[in-house]
Amino acid sequence: VARAGGEWALLARLLPRINRGLSRRVRVPPGDDAAVVEAGGRSWAVTTDMLVEGVHFRRRWTSGEDLGHKLLAVNLSDLAAMGDAGPAFGVVSLGITGKTPVDFVDGFLRGLQGLARRHAFDLVGGDTVRAERVTANLTVMAELKSRPVRRSGAREGDRLLVTGTLGDAAAGLACLERKRGRPEAHLVKRLLRPEPRLEPARRLMRIGPPSAMIDCSDGLWRSVRLLADASGAGVRVETERLPLSAPLRRWAARTGRDPLDYALAGGEDYELVLTAPPAAAARIVRAGLASDAGRVTARREGVTATFFGRKRRIPRGFEHFGGD
Amino acid sequence: VARAGGEWALLARLLPRINRGLSRRVRVPPGDDAAVVEAGGRSWAVTTDMLVEGVHFRRRWTSGEDLGHKLLAVNLSDLAAMGDAGPAFGVVSLGITGKTPVDFVDGFLRGLQGLARRHAFDLVGGDTVRAERVTANLTVMAELKSRPVRRSGAREGDRLLVTGTLGDAAAGLACLERKRGRPEAHLVKRLLRPEPRLEPARRLMRIGPPSAMIDCSDGLWRSVRLLADASGAGVRVETERLPLSAPLRRWAARTGRDPLDYALAGGEDYELVLTAPPAAAARIVRAGLASDAGRVTARREGVTATFFGRKRRIPRGFEHFGGD
Repeated sequence: VARAGGEWALLARLLPRINRGLSRRVRVPPGDDAAVVEAGGRSWAVTTDMLVEGVHFRRRWTSGEDLGHKLLAVNLSDLAAMGDAGPAFGVVSLGITGKTPVDFVDGFLRGLQGLARRHAFDLVGGDTVRAERVTANLTVMAELKSRPVRRSGAREGDRLLVTGTLGDAAAGLACLERKRGRPEAHLVKRLLRPEPRLEPARRLMRIGPPSAMIDCSDGLWRSVRLLADASGAGVRVETERLPLSAPLRRWAARTGRDPLDYALAGGEDYELVLTAPPAAAARIVRAGLASDAGRVTARREGVTATFFGRKRRIPRGFEHFGGD
Repeated sequence: VARAGGEWALLARLLPRINRGLSRRVRVPPGDDAAVVEAGGRSWAVTTDMLVEGVHFRRRWTSGEDLGHKLLAVNLSDLAAMGDAGPAFGVVSLGITGKTPVDFVDGFLRGLQGLARRHAFDLVGGDTVRAERVTANLTVMAELKSRPVRRSGAREGDRLLVTGTLGDAAAGLACLERKRGRPEAHLVKRLLRPEPRLEPARRLMRIGPPSAMIDCSDGLWRSVRLLADASGAGVRVETERLPLSAPLRRWAARTGRDPLDYALAGGEDYELVLTAPPAAAARIVRAGLASDAGRVTARREGVTATFFGRKRRIPRGFEHFGGD
């Protein structure tokens, strides 16, 4: 019997079939960070994410509060990656085992609602079921007040930009997993309590706008490849320009790691990765909304990483919970 | 450690906390068949359902196609129970194990899309993850073109009405589980391929409208109790009037069962249970949209079932996949 295989393979297999036969009100079909649908004379961005215990998170270091926060954050991050998303609302499904403590469930809701308050998010419904492992699914939607920014709009000559700093979350996971020394609080927080970049996305739309955008859930490298593929372009990541936090630099120096490995290939940062023509990119960088991290090239040049002009190797085999 | 307990208990525990702090755009908060949110100047009904292998369905007799169909049907049924829902759209999350066959996944999508075509539903996105058991979550939303019909609107003197026929799905499950004789195709189909009552709901709104409505996923008895509780009323179910299909009658006669047991307490029929003042109820019955099945009483009379005026016992312990 043929197996459905990994989720990426499965998704690639299913997308063409899902997209066939969609009605004309679907402006952005499945395959981008969020779908965009015309309904009631407006555009709506919709996305969903499921987190499964042991696959996307470990109970050992993920409290109910962390899980609730993160589930909402990763969904809002997908909305942010589509442009200027208005106040969002959504519904949650929570699968619990017979042994799930009440405290975990209470914490889950507290974590979700804590982040919800800061982003005008309304949780308007839910379903609770019995499951073998804690399984949490959230669907969020919001009116999209700008045109949708797709992954496919990058053009040769555009600059590559990233918001915030990269690699923190992956370093946070390394702290938790290897237990070498005291975990860096900032790094662990970036892993367990990511901040969705809704407000930066709104400002980017006014100041830029970007030509293409994607969120950075599975590492910069993966995001850049998806963006380049969708756009039919190449991208050169100038790794010496990648924005690194001071805590990541300190931790890397102390533990003998290369922080650029984490920034390039570590997942779960939930920053925005975008491209913009040079003038718009300059405005965005001047406004302090993102850092310049490379450029869009011709397709034939492929997706590459350089370090002060010389080709740089891409680290492989990063462990992370939240991607594959 | 206190356990979160059954899903009903959990939901009852969480609802007040979810509902606290919702913004004013939430017109119907969590706790009804679907939530209703004001957004973009329109009303939107939103609902979500998660189905877990071994809890809500068994792979032994549920094909991928059945699962895809049913997941969409149960969600659309929740929208129908809110009133006149326009064309719906939604997003799916599918958790698969390493051993899930490709055929199952393909069938899942085929089943979902088969029903989608008949109800102008657009599947606009999804997430695929690895899981220990097949886990499928669907969120659907639609513009609500009528006022929302809540569970709480039943008033003493209203009639109790139900669409279609009751008990078929539970009898279908009994056929599959006990394997006594040849399964009745109609009954099994009612279990595996329920039909959401979207079009009847639209017509009910024009012809009635109902004072309260709920769908019948966990059996008539449970739906009536939820409706009575929410309305602060009593309900008398006149069981001799419950609509039974010819296949259910035949199967019950052949196997020595009381078909009213199935109609009263068997789940998964996904019919609509509604109340309406006598004149509206008469119009609805005359239009062939629903059957009269009892009346709304004072709260102090409680929720009771009669059989030609005499009190009737409520069967307990029905096995079904889809409720608790």
